[in-house]
Amino acid sequence: MAKKVITISREFGSGGRSIGKMVADKLGYKFYDSEIINKVIEESGLAREIVEKYDEYATHKNSFLYSIAVNAGYSDGHGGLSFANQVQIAQVNVIKEIADAGNCVIIGRGADYILRDRENCFNVFIRADMDFRAKRVIDIYGETGKKIEDRLKDKDTKRRVFYRSFTMREWGAFENYNLMLDSGRIGLDKCADIICGIINDK
Amino acid sequence: MAKKVITISREFGSGGRSIGKMVADKLGYKFYDSEIINKVIEESGLAREIVEKYDEYATHKNSFLYSIAVNAGYSDGHGGLSFANQVQIAQVNVIKEIADAGNCVIIGRGADYILRDRENCFNVFIRADMDFRAKRVIDIYGETGKKIEDRLKDKDTKRRVFYRSFTMREWGAFENYNLMLDSGRIGLDKCADIICGIINDK
Repeated sequence: MAKKVITISREFGSGGRSIGKMVADKLGYKFYDSEIINKVIEESGLAREIVEKYDEYATHKNSFLYSIAVNAGYSDGHGGLSFANQVQIAQVNVIKEIADAGNCVIIGRGADYILRDRENCFNVFIRADMDFRAKRVIDIYGETGKKIEDRLKDKDTKRRVFYRSFTMREWGAFENYNLMLDSGRIGLDKCADIICGIINDK
Repeated sequence: MAKKVITISREFGSGGRSIGKMVADKLGYKFYDSEIINKVIEESGLAREIVEKYDEYATHKNSFLYSIAVNAGYSDGHGGLSFANQVQIAQVNVIKEIADAGNCVIIGRGADYILRDRENCFNVFIRADMDFRAKRVIDIYGETGKKIEDRLKDKDTKRRVFYRSFTMREWGAFENYNLMLDSGRIGLDKCADIICGIINDK
């Protein structure tokens, strides 16, 4: 049977990562979020600081070049490519390898787009209202009231710009996902149960 | 306890209506789709042909006026208003009355927007890929291959334009929904089960 891949895109603070981790644990799937960074370091030979800097980083300037590279499966001969593009190309290769290797949950990084032609890929988007996300981020990271909304908006904008520059599609557009869950209304545990229920049903 | 309202927006052919009907039957909720038309006829005193013509109909020209009317709770003194606006204003009043009356499922008609300030409202969007929807529409309505994609696109465009002109928001934008389900991937029965599971959990 084809390996199953669950991709999770998420608004910052919505708990998408936590939901993905619960799903992976319940289903016995591998889980990839920052784990991808280590694999990109191995794949690219670049220094950790460079890879971390350009993780989910938008490259406006080179987005068209990058899009061509991604779609052509460009994988070596880095002469002339920026570090950002080298990181992203390595990331594309790593995500394809991960998806080939076995059942897994992948957080962010445009994985839904990279794997868009694979029928075994189930794409989830997690969102929540600003109040819920702000409270959750403060609970977890201990930040204070005033700046939190700006921080959430900045993070979401960064993800939106990264996704658009890299895929030429709109982040969060319903056409690109099989499931969208409002974690604030539904609850994180229930979101994980719903995803597992759908995957187990197939 | 506050009455629960489930609104269902849907791409044409995705089965959103059928899913809504299953949910209403399982939960013992009232179900409103074309039932709204009868209530709008009573409310407005307009002829059936007029009400049916302007059901989920976009009024580009008067959308700003309409938006003001909706938000001000404008409900009588129709002098100078087009039939389209009269139908839509009656529809807004009918949807608010329905939501006040008891637990219910409401299909389309911008109900998510009309009821946006109510905490007891759970907003669902149902989508599916073109192939799934085309096959489903042909199975149900017996139409043939060639024109079906155009028909689906026309219907979706009509709903999108209606929604935008009437709410000043984007149809299907994730911020406006608590749940989005791809009925082609998940299956209609399972979609209904997921919605019931969430509502029963609360």
